[in-house]
Amino acid sequence: MGILLKNIQMLLYTEKGPVVKRDNIYIEDRIIKAIGERPDTFSEDKVIDGTDRFAIPGMINAHTHSYMAFLRNVADDLSFMDWLFGTIDPLEQKMSSEDAYWGANLAILEMMKSGTTCFNDMQMNIHQTTRAVKESGMRAVICRGLVGSGNDEAGRIRLNEAYEEREAFKDCDRLNFFLGPHAPYTCDEEYLKIVASEAKKEKMGIHIHLAESLSEMEGCAEKYHCTPIELAERCGLFDVPAIAAHCVNVNDGDLDILKEKNVSVVTNPASNMKLGNGFAPVAKMLEKGINVCLGTDGAASNNSLNMFHEMNLLSLIHKGVAKVPQCISAKEAIQIATINGAKALGLEQQIGSIEVGKKADLAIINLRTPSFMPKNNLIAGLAYSANGSEVETVIIDGTITMENRNVLTMDEERIYFEMDQILKKMGLENKVY
Amino acid sequence: MGILLKNIQMLLYTEKGPVVKRDNIYIEDRIIKAIGERPDTFSEDKVIDGTDRFAIPGMINAHTHSYMAFLRNVADDLSFMDWLFGTIDPLEQKMSSEDAYWGANLAILEMMKSGTTCFNDMQMNIHQTTRAVKESGMRAVICRGLVGSGNDEAGRIRLNEAYEEREAFKDCDRLNFFLGPHAPYTCDEEYLKIVASEAKKEKMGIHIHLAESLSEMEGCAEKYHCTPIELAERCGLFDVPAIAAHCVNVNDGDLDILKEKNVSVVTNPASNMKLGNGFAPVAKMLEKGINVCLGTDGAASNNSLNMFHEMNLLSLIHKGVAKVPQCISAKEAIQIATINGAKALGLEQQIGSIEVGKKADLAIINLRTPSFMPKNNLIAGLAYSANGSEVETVIIDGTITMENRNVLTMDEERIYFEMDQILKKMGLENKVY
Repeated sequence: MGILLKNIQMLLYTEKGPVVKRDNIYIEDRIIKAIGERPDTFSEDKVIDGTDRFAIPGMINAHTHSYMAFLRNVADDLSFMDWLFGTIDPLEQKMSSEDAYWGANLAILEMMKSGTTCFNDMQMNIHQTTRAVKESGMRAVICRGLVGSGNDEAGRIRLNEAYEEREAFKDCDRLNFFLGPHAPYTCDEEYLKIVASEAKKEKMGIHIHLAESLSEMEGCAEKYHCTPIELAERCGLFDVPAIAAHCVNVNDGDLDILKEKNVSVVTNPASNMKLGNGFAPVAKMLEKGINVCLGTDGAASNNSLNMFHEMNLLSLIHKGVAKVPQCISAKEAIQIATINGAKALGLEQQIGSIEVGKKADLAIINLRTPSFMPKNNLIAGLAYSANGSEVETVIIDGTITMENRNVLTMDEERIYFEMDQILKKMGLENKVY
Repeated sequence: MGILLKNIQMLLYTEKGPVVKRDNIYIEDRIIKAIGERPDTFSEDKVIDGTDRFAIPGMINAHTHSYMAFLRNVADDLSFMDWLFGTIDPLEQKMSSEDAYWGANLAILEMMKSGTTCFNDMQMNIHQTTRAVKESGMRAVICRGLVGSGNDEAGRIRLNEAYEEREAFKDCDRLNFFLGPHAPYTCDEEYLKIVASEAKKEKMGIHIHLAESLSEMEGCAEKYHCTPIELAERCGLFDVPAIAAHCVNVNDGDLDILKEKNVSVVTNPASNMKLGNGFAPVAKMLEKGINVCLGTDGAASNNSLNMFHEMNLLSLIHKGVAKVPQCISAKEAIQIATINGAKALGLEQQIGSIEVGKKADLAIINLRTPSFMPKNNLIAGLAYSANGSEVETVIIDGTITMENRNVLTMDEERIYFEMDQILKKMGLENKVY
């Protein structure tokens, strides 16, 4: 199917940084065939008029726990311990596989409706998410969440699940698989080393939570006499392509390691504030040349999977912390939310920018909305004015998955129906908060 | 016209704090006639089905500069001086009265579409905003921006404009008028004293920028050997109902003055971060019992007039700064964004909550959206998940001004057309940022 985006403004990444240009975009065989000049063989089945529209690379949510969307707004304004052990954990115990499936569907729906075309997921019920990703037309990297101590059987079983899932979905190239050792406080050193050597052997990337809270720092110092970043390095986790989520509490030595080992950092502004962990030193990371990308974390600690929301936070909070209005510009923020995520996932040759030959993963924004009026600096608009609801059309892997805000590849009403059922089952239907 | 909101969930403010309750709401003669029991004489011309809908008090944007909406996304990632004198000021010099009128219209449109039903405006072209407010069905407090030194004629003329405007619109009770001495760095002490005595004589409130930037603090210390809050107090500005915007840089003595003099503080999280001014000590203000309300500031320094965006920032950033996840709860945030704003404007008997006898100023949210799914804690949803696009219907002064996201009282397409014209006139149409 050939799709012509006719005379449309688009966000391009050039050597001089992001620029906005107006031209035609030709999409065919899942890829961006051409920009500007019409390819000889191209024939359009579909034309999208670019008047007052703005095409951007789809957002890449580089750290989330998708199925947890069913736990949105269920535990807020609580200490971390009350949040996790008082509410989230007991509810997860009641969760069935089907609940996880519908939770993942809700997450994908929300992401698609706010212009996200790829996400990096860590969790235990990966099969339910791979199902939902495959059916919905979304793109994702799926990381089996791993907890374990030493060479125990449970840890081994979890690793095998990751391999089986990868095998089962090898035909769907919208799906990729990493290993997801949870964190230094849920995996011991020996298990982390096993995971690292498995990743090396299986040629898989690593996705781990690191240096998120002060209690993690204290625990790591006490048990291992080092920082979580140092521990991860000495276990070999950074000898494969690695993604470290959070990195709120990192010293200069940690930053040197992250840079030297080419580790990508996912910053999660909303979650870090909401759980009282603070602000990651993102400006310093960028200065060092570390690849920083952006994630929402799960809906239980955000409580939104909207990357426009996250990008807005990213571009505002560090200006406030540093008292420097130039800190994290709109142009930096949009790259962090797109191409940097692609680099972290090892997919920068395929996605993350509007470029000839890349997969057609795009969000098209309707500029006839107060957020973008008047039509001044559209890149500033993305970071400072937009809330994600301006995304009108989404194309993933060359397929239109949302048009005029109708998601074509998912049953939105069914997902809401299932959410009502889960609410009843969990006994939350008439809960007064 | 009688409007029945049938079997709808609503946000009520009780002695125990905000709660969500389901019942009927009866609106007639511009007010909330009854909640629950049907009034004897009530007859509905319009029924809104409350299924999966959530009625909240309309948001009150307690500090903005509405006409500046036409300067949205025109000057970003710049120092304050480059922002103001390099871009904003020169463009404002080219602005006509009609530009200000359409700018105010754009601002009102944006606010209405994101559930704001009243705003507090400070600016120079007040007549264009009063026109736009009256025509659009919005509610506002209009503050003539005042700059002056000593007893000069220019300062006197500006005061007179405020009185003339109040007189001209005395029949529209959706409009109220305050005096808006701009700031201690644009008004000298003598002029501030004149404004204070005029406000007292005319029985008008005061709306002023105070303690926003460090350079303001330094200038005030040098010139007056005191803080901006101390200066405002000694000029008599706090002897009438007063609203102080920003208050980022306040010491304990300042907070004591604000509390003792019953001054309302408007916090503006986005603007304070974006211009590099930092974070106001909101938690401390609330502890002291100061009435804190919420504002977006102008679209040139935010760049959004969406109060859901602002409420989300309010509820997240202070958790991050204090590293305390309970800091500014969702329940506090929604009150700050509604009833506290009404108190600041002296309108708490009329608006700011869903209460029998109050004006019907409401926003109705469609819960069939990922932000509110599953339907757990709806109050947490307002602060943490919603982005404002979930607002489906808006009622102001008992009139439906927006229905199914169509604004009935304004011409949205005309406003966008006028924005395109302004863009051309300003020479920004093809500017590459």
